[in-house]
Amino acid sequence: MNTFGRIFRISIFGESHGTMIGVTIDGCPHGIPLRIEDFMADLDRRRAGAEGTTPRKEADIPEIVSGWFNGHTTGAPLTIVFRNNDTRSTDYVDLKDHPRPGHSDFVARQKFGGFNDYRGGGHFSGRLTLALVAAGVVAKKILSNISINALLIEAGGRTDIFEAVREAKEKGDSIGGIVECRAGYISVGYGEPFFDSVESVISHLAFSIPAIKGIEFGSGFSAAKMYGSQHNDPIVDETGKTSSFNAGGITGGLTNGNELVFRVAVKPTSSIAKAQQTYNFSNGKVDELKVEGRHDTCIALRVPVVLEAITAIALADFTLLTRET
Amino acid sequence: MNTFGRIFRISIFGESHGTMIGVTIDGCPHGIPLRIEDFMADLDRRRAGAEGTTPRKEADIPEIVSGWFNGHTTGAPLTIVFRNNDTRSTDYVDLKDHPRPGHSDFVARQKFGGFNDYRGGGHFSGRLTLALVAAGVVAKKILSNISINALLIEAGGRTDIFEAVREAKEKGDSIGGIVECRAGYISVGYGEPFFDSVESVISHLAFSIPAIKGIEFGSGFSAAKMYGSQHNDPIVDETGKTSSFNAGGITGGLTNGNELVFRVAVKPTSSIAKAQQTYNFSNGKVDELKVEGRHDTCIALRVPVVLEAITAIALADFTLLTRET
Amino acid sequence: MNTFGRIFRISIFGESHGTMIGVTIDGCPHGIPLRIEDFMADLDRRRAGAEGTTPRKEADIPEIVSGWFNGHTTGAPLTIVFRNNDTRSTDYVDLKDHPRPGHSDFVARQKFGGFNDYRGGGHFSGRLTLALVAAGVVAKKILSNISINALLIEAGGRTDIFEAVREAKEKGDSIGGIVECRAGYISVGYGEPFFDSVESVISHLAFSIPAIKGIEFGSGFSAAKMYGSQHNDPIVDETGKTSSFNAGGITGGLTNGNELVFRVAVKPTSSIAKAQQTYNFSNGKVDELKVEGRHDTCIALRVPVVLEAITAIALADFTLLTRET
Amino acid sequence: MNTFGRIFRISIFGESHGTMIGVTIDGCPHGIPLRIEDFMADLDRRRAGAEGTTPRKEADIPEIVSGWFNGHTTGAPLTIVFRNNDTRSTDYVDLKDHPRPGHSDFVARQKFGGFNDYRGGGHFSGRLTLALVAAGVVAKKILSNISINALLIEAGGRTDIFEAVREAKEKGDSIGGIVECRAGYISVGYGEPFFDSVESVISHLAFSIPAIKGIEFGSGFSAAKMYGSQHNDPIVDETGKTSSFNAGGITGGLTNGNELVFRVAVKPTSSIAKAQQTYNFSNGKVDELKVEGRHDTCIALRVPVVLEAITAIALADFTLLTRET
Repeated sequence: MNTFGRIFRISIFGESHGTMIGVTIDGCPHGIPLRIEDFMADLDRRRAGAEGTTPRKEADIPEIVSGWFNGHTTGAPLTIVFRNNDTRSTDYVDLKDHPRPGHSDFVARQKFGGFNDYRGGGHFSGRLTLALVAAGVVAKKILSNISINALLIEAGGRTDIFEAVREAKEKGDSIGGIVECRAGYISVGYGEPFFDSVESVISHLAFSIPAIKGIEFGSGFSAAKMYGSQHNDPIVDETGKTSSFNAGGITGGLTNGNELVFRVAVKPTSSIAKAQQTYNFSNGKVDELKVEGRHDTCIALRVPVVLEAITAIALADFTLLTRET
Repeated sequence: MNTFGRIFRISIFGESHGTMIGVTIDGCPHGIPLRIEDFMADLDRRRAGAEGTTPRKEADIPEIVSGWFNGHTTGAPLTIVFRNNDTRSTDYVDLKDHPRPGHSDFVARQKFGGFNDYRGGGHFSGRLTLALVAAGVVAKKILSNISINALLIEAGGRTDIFEAVREAKEKGDSIGGIVECRAGYISVGYGEPFFDSVESVISHLAFSIPAIKGIEFGSGFSAAKMYGSQHNDPIVDETGKTSSFNAGGITGGLTNGNELVFRVAVKPTSSIAKAQQTYNFSNGKVDELKVEGRHDTCIALRVPVVLEAITAIALADFTLLTRET
Repeated sequence: MNTFGRIFRISIFGESHGTMIGVTIDGCPHGIPLRIEDFMADLDRRRAGAEGTTPRKEADIPEIVSGWFNGHTTGAPLTIVFRNNDTRSTDYVDLKDHPRPGHSDFVARQKFGGFNDYRGGGHFSGRLTLALVAAGVVAKKILSNISINALLIEAGGRTDIFEAVREAKEKGDSIGGIVECRAGYISVGYGEPFFDSVESVISHLAFSIPAIKGIEFGSGFSAAKMYGSQHNDPIVDETGKTSSFNAGGITGGLTNGNELVFRVAVKPTSSIAKAQQTYNFSNGKVDELKVEGRHDTCIALRVPVVLEAITAIALADFTLLTRET
Repeated sequence: MNTFGRIFRISIFGESHGTMIGVTIDGCPHGIPLRIEDFMADLDRRRAGAEGTTPRKEADIPEIVSGWFNGHTTGAPLTIVFRNNDTRSTDYVDLKDHPRPGHSDFVARQKFGGFNDYRGGGHFSGRLTLALVAAGVVAKKILSNISINALLIEAGGRTDIFEAVREAKEKGDSIGGIVECRAGYISVGYGEPFFDSVESVISHLAFSIPAIKGIEFGSGFSAAKMYGSQHNDPIVDETGKTSSFNAGGITGGLTNGNELVFRVAVKPTSSIAKAQQTYNFSNGKVDELKVEGRHDTCIALRVPVVLEAITAIALADFTLLTRET
């Protein structure tokens, strides 16, 4: 399904090497001031360029093609598109029959009967997160009083992150990482039981980001090792403030007035320069694949701004949903 | 939102101390043989009774009140209800103003303006998982060739699980745990991009289960410490079989033909016998709370069958969705 | 699909001769005062009993089994059920293989592979409108300032309605009718383009009521014969009041501040005492069917309260949706 | 809401005078052959140009920007866009404060706090039906064996349609009309009770088309005047064929194997050359408005292809939904 959300509803389209990718936001309130420049900071954070990110260079200038008039949102569906320009499709021809391990090549081929656009991962490309970041910029405008900050806190199991990335790159390999996201000043009571707990909605969106393989809220997996008397956060005042923060800001699936804290595990980039063994449909054998193309050594470097975006998208929808009851 | 799913759609209702709780399954195919006895094994596994589970005793006999005729599903909405009998509501009167730390008491009060049924956690009660288990029994019938098994693999950080539970109980405390779920014989290509990756849908449902605070697929958080050359699972034949299993059976958000593996972190039960400090609305002070009631020492003991149920529910929907393309 | 609505979401279940029928309302605001007695006036209007309605007698006492505590809605899913008592299933045995013309017997059999509960029309029974009426009672509570009134304005093409019904009954036949619904004091701007115009949402719900075969808003089909200069309603003040009412209170799919007016065409009851020809699966021939059972001569007599209910349900959802932007 | 459908899901965006309008189809099966030329016949039928249609000239060449590769659908979201070129926005400046009677100007201004793009009706423009027609072309490909034909059968109450249009145009006025749609060779059992009867889904989509004010299936409003013995269609064989066709191909909300027949009432175009009285926000008085712009005398002339499109969209979704049970 290419749509997510109940009131602030986003729909994604596009493929890595198609004409354009884009996002439509339905249910965006009217009258929100919006400029092209508002997108640039977050798009820059997502864009390749730093050590350890792909050399593919895209201008990534958003075009707002509907729902926007005289510098404000109109209340009609807000559509933002991005042209794909720097595509080198020939890099991918071999992968059609020789699927990269860890990548969507094989499953996409099977699910879509070979009709999928395999170039650059097609619709499975990390390039689609551009649309999430754009939607996140709009979502953040609705959350003017809420702060959201995500940070790569570990790469390849190490905290000297840039060094870890450099070493992996030298080896022609890739590494994963852990990104932590914190959001402050959220009202008590966001979340819509039974199925739309805050954890449910954020994790649903987070696992749409390619390469995410785990998520934990507050103490998360450590909570499984604790006693209740250690884990329970004592409530200290009538606003719900607690003296410890094991819940990560969520109890009973609802925001509890404390800082929202969660972490995601990002797997290492699947595409690596090192030779790998994988099944080859063209000769019916397992043989060696060397992925040429242009790839990130550590895709986790680019995840923080995407994680902020999906958090903002989730909170924007909860904000609008909460307003109506 | 009380509904989940696109074709196999479940809707939940009920509160811990109301008349009944129930689930309606819309989109259940017609002609599935179904008997009351089919529910009993899974309901037994969920039911309290073992060491470390609540002494509340409910018969938990399902009544199928619609969508069922001559021993088969009819194609109309299938509704299954459970009476609440063994309710001791007086246990909960104090909690209205003196919210238990770690529990939904405070957030529910705030969200619903004090109108929520606070008895036994109301709609936030773990008792609602009874409805999930019932829906899971039906879902499993659709998945006749798929095996699903969940197991508590760790409690309180230890693998001698029953001993760990016994010790916590003696202390008047509670402990958490880790539950692992494995599902085999799933076709390649389940999952509906962009937003309905298999991880997205399973995590959405998993975080609806009270007390879940983390989830990871395959190597999960360990993947964040690996090199790509270690994590990538080499494909060894045309069916997608791999020689390692770091992906947990999911690549690009789609099932890849290998065993589906994921783990959830279950926090320790919030309600403990030990005295705790928490804000008291009736006197405006933080003071001591001793939770009387009847509670589980280790709610994780009862999670495996619920986790199997939500996995079956997710896979049933994917099965029906996949059939149409 | 058994669910309708975006915020005020209703889910229906039940079959004519099953254990119970019911409705769950998700997204109902908390704190709404609600008593069993509140349902009785509308349920009485729907109930059989008058000349021309079925002799089947059901007490139709609603039981609120969840989402209700201390006389108010709690914010959790609100489920209301009705027992089926006065069922005479033997009346329907023959219809399994000898489908009534104009009724769902044949299509239900085909769609559900013969597994459908054919007794009394099963899930297709008009008895399901009981659930709509119950949901309508709750919806009306949200719309305290809006008036909704529906009236049977014509039966069998005549305005001396009771006489027309009496004559049809004497002939062992049935007749149709036209029901008009008017709703006043609605704010400007209800409706959610592009697909959820007020006409779209009301007609979607209206055609869920068995026997409805047409709907028109304002001048409706007469508008097709008019000039624009006749049909356009001149706006006379800043609140949007118009000096004529051809639009039926809706322009551009949105409420325009004038009275909402629409009419539905109700076909004659399919089940009639008169002998009819229809295909008989048991002998592979077209032969005579005499429908025994207990049936309405003019089902349109019972439609007004149902039409009010679906109007209230639609407007309740629009009210809650409008609050959030 | 800008989205409709459960499996074959369409999302619309765009405004009359924005950069582009477009539609995204999610859930379109992969492997469908699709060429730009496939769209031209239906787009031509919708396009202005004939006597009685607006002189605005748009090339209306579709660009498929995603979900399409090597001449086939890929299974990813299929997005089709159309540039807006021939926009004369200055025509509309006055209407901002002087809303046209019968048009969305007033309600859009109120709903969107004056932030709506008022030029050419913005998101309420009939130009958006271009997106429906494009989606309809794709939908028809899924329905290869089903025929769908719509025809303007009456304009201004007359059957000499072109003469009626010519006369209205001479008067500087506009007229409405009635469009009938017939679809053949549909399987028995399309429709998803309780809320998604075939009538419900088709009417929901039909009332999204600007200017539609009524819809009736089969005998429709005439049914309200009939006896049951006249209206009931006798079933004559095991495929459900009937000897009369009052039901319009739908019984119990499901297709019954006979031709689907329905009619819509199209109101006269709101924008007319003749002077009209309407409230003027700029001076607080009711005064005369002469709509300049370029408008259709009889918008109903352009409705048939749009009605075919929404019918195809509805049937495509039912086809895919039916495949899964």
